[in-house]
Amino acid sequence: MEKRSALDQAFEQRWKTLLGEWIEFLKFPSISAQPSYDSECSRCAAWLVQWLKGNGFHAWLEPTRSKPLVRAHRDGLPGAPHVLYYGHYDVQPVDPVDAWTTPPFDPVYRNDRLYARGAEDNKGQIWFTLQAMATLIAMGNPMPPIDILLEGEEECGSAGITEWLQAHAGDIRSDILLVTDTNTVPDGRPTLVMGLRGIIHATAVLQGPAYDLHSGVHGGVAPNPATGLARLLTSLHDAQGRIAVEGFHDGILPLSPAEKAETARARFDPEQYRHATGVPPCAGDPDRTPIERAGFLPSIDINGIHAGYSGSGIKTIIPATATVKLTARLAAGQDPDHCLDCLCRHLERQVPKGLTLAITERGIGGKGFRLAPDTPLVQQTLMVLEKLQEGEPARLWEGASIPVVSALQSASGADPVLVGFGDEADRIHAPDESFSREQMRRGFVFAGLWLDAMTRGGQ
Amino acid sequence: MEKRSALDQAFEQRWKTLLGEWIEFLKFPSISAQPSYDSECSRCAAWLVQWLKGNGFHAWLEPTRSKPLVRAHRDGLPGAPHVLYYGHYDVQPVDPVDAWTTPPFDPVYRNDRLYARGAEDNKGQIWFTLQAMATLIAMGNPMPPIDILLEGEEECGSAGITEWLQAHAGDIRSDILLVTDTNTVPDGRPTLVMGLRGIIHATAVLQGPAYDLHSGVHGGVAPNPATGLARLLTSLHDAQGRIAVEGFHDGILPLSPAEKAETARARFDPEQYRHATGVPPCAGDPDRTPIERAGFLPSIDINGIHAGYSGSGIKTIIPATATVKLTARLAAGQDPDHCLDCLCRHLERQVPKGLTLAITERGIGGKGFRLAPDTPLVQQTLMVLEKLQEGEPARLWEGASIPVVSALQSASGADPVLVGFGDEADRIHAPDESFSREQMRRGFVFAGLWLDAMTRGGQ
Repeated sequence: MEKRSALDQAFEQRWKTLLGEWIEFLKFPSISAQPSYDSECSRCAAWLVQWLKGNGFHAWLEPTRSKPLVRAHRDGLPGAPHVLYYGHYDVQPVDPVDAWTTPPFDPVYRNDRLYARGAEDNKGQIWFTLQAMATLIAMGNPMPPIDILLEGEEECGSAGITEWLQAHAGDIRSDILLVTDTNTVPDGRPTLVMGLRGIIHATAVLQGPAYDLHSGVHGGVAPNPATGLARLLTSLHDAQGRIAVEGFHDGILPLSPAEKAETARARFDPEQYRHATGVPPCAGDPDRTPIERAGFLPSIDINGIHAGYSGSGIKTIIPATATVKLTARLAAGQDPDHCLDCLCRHLERQVPKGLTLAITERGIGGKGFRLAPDTPLVQQTLMVLEKLQEGEPARLWEGASIPVVSALQSASGADPVLVGFGDEADRIHAPDESFSREQMRRGFVFAGLWLDAMTRGGQ
Repeated sequence: MEKRSALDQAFEQRWKTLLGEWIEFLKFPSISAQPSYDSECSRCAAWLVQWLKGNGFHAWLEPTRSKPLVRAHRDGLPGAPHVLYYGHYDVQPVDPVDAWTTPPFDPVYRNDRLYARGAEDNKGQIWFTLQAMATLIAMGNPMPPIDILLEGEEECGSAGITEWLQAHAGDIRSDILLVTDTNTVPDGRPTLVMGLRGIIHATAVLQGPAYDLHSGVHGGVAPNPATGLARLLTSLHDAQGRIAVEGFHDGILPLSPAEKAETARARFDPEQYRHATGVPPCAGDPDRTPIERAGFLPSIDINGIHAGYSGSGIKTIIPATATVKLTARLAAGQDPDHCLDCLCRHLERQVPKGLTLAITERGIGGKGFRLAPDTPLVQQTLMVLEKLQEGEPARLWEGASIPVVSALQSASGADPVLVGFGDEADRIHAPDESFSREQMRRGFVFAGLWLDAMTRGGQ
């Protein structure tokens, strides 16, 4: 508890400085998706380099084909595990800007929350981590060797860092990959993300007639691409909702007994789910729980389907084409290349008669992964979360994907640790994004305790 | 042959007058869909009334809730069948106006064709009929009793006449309904339309989540309305393409032996169809020929299907809703109300779990009908077409619908006769619409011979 109180105290002492610097950091409109903000992204990155240099790191900008990477290094205790910290300094666009109470890049602190674009995602969550590192360094605390990698286009696809990683894997070899870009569970208990799903995508166009045909003259004679697409997409699942694509399930890691026990204990209330989303949790394999389906199984989802007329009244056509946009989430163990092949081959094999299929887009986001529940790293991290004394630490198997995490994991060879203190109230990506002093404090204490534990764990 | 030569001769004598008056008729921009042309529609209708009055008819304007009807009457030979002639004086919009070689309402006669909006549809095809009537009257030919009904909004839904018919069915009781608003078969032989399909429509929305959900967090847990809609629409047909909606086939009139024989003789070349449309004629019941499927069987077609994201790249959502627009073509004997009920009930019964269905639009265009091939009226009309000496008359079971025809048929009690001389080269609804002197001559001779045959047939 000594370290815990020291960190609590340090946070209180540092708060004014931390808040002032956080506001400076948030004032950069580092919107990565909009090229007119490119120079603001570069200015923000340069500011981070200066800050890191002033706080005990060797730091520099690393160009990519798009936004620069912020890189930093600090040697640490020999024998301690090498930590790679990843985050992103870019932010989402601010539209609709009229819906903001105060301007998105003019941070305002009210009711113990700081309001600004990026206040949480990911500048706020970066900030407690870097401030905790700076505090430990200033306190003369022993530290593990640390590399820092902050990218500038996570919000628009991470293209630059992904390409950079292919050529520079050797530069970031490390033991542990720390990411603080996630949420706690809904009841707010400290949360360790135990896995993320992978993601692949495809866009398919079913071509029928050379032009929209008159449905009276041709109805019942010409094949209809919209009807054909409905049949094609129906074939992706069986009548119970299980994926029916041959070979797609290859390699899926089954739940270990520990995972099985853990998910069985997790709370999931179908009525609460329905209340929150408007639908019951009834998709996917009916023999598995919703927590298992989201965290441990793949899913194939239609993100969009379009053909023909959408206005009011009637337009009597057989549309010339029908298009679908699909993504699939992949469980740990599935090979994205293989899954994308299986999916595309399935679509090609099932093309309804008279129509032709073109797959116009296809791509891989990243692999899924799961942490083994009983590794020393997981156990140590859970012990740190326990020390926050904010309820029993939760383990969360995330259904979502952070594709760059699996790319970083492959490139660095490190085991990931994903802990974040975001929650729904922060409204990330939306107007009036914010992050509270309390969340900042929790993150700061966690990061400090965790770095300390890693140092000692490696001794 | 005496009557035939007399009509040929009369056409040549009358041609200059006919052409001059046709041009006057075409100069009215009677575009019904665009309210700014309402007064032009009224002026056109008034001009027709004057012309009919000057050519042997009692004629007047009849108001409806929108465009006025042109009505005319002439007593005829007692005992001869009472003929009701229907046509429409309104025309399609002219966009894209830049694509016209000469202005659409400044008719130009070149290479034996008259170019203008409405040159064929329906002003040209009205014109040979009315001119033939006027010629016979001027020649002192005995005539059947004739009523004329020319509406002004066929191109935008026939709402006015449809409402008017409900209150005035008694005013137009007659024996035969003549319509000259159709085409000849592709090889140009004189053609009698033996049937039209009916039409119903529905728009259905499948509601899922309260808002677009993150497909990573919710994929495999939340039901996806686009996936659900694909399954729902697939259930409308069996694996071979036959309609699988319970009760939908009730009442369909089977092909009579004469119809069976006639359609078996009709020419249909699958390769030519594929060349023209881009698809093989492979939809519908595989045990029936394409001609049977389009003319004698119903079809259910998706005219549009829309859900979620349609742009480039990926958007990882489970869309909140999915929408489909459907029309069904109905065979003769099917009750549109019953079919629409069956279709909607089918959709409601098959709603995938977790989703809700709303049918947001539903409506009935009109019933289908077929003429018995061996009635005296059909035989007489075919004999008249034979007298044109332009190849063996063709019988055409149209897959399309002209909803007002079934409404007129019910209101008047008359048997329909649909003969027209349009063909694809006329480019109706498109820029540079035209109708040739030769088509006008054929129509004029047909109308004269047919009216004469009806008079004699009724004696």
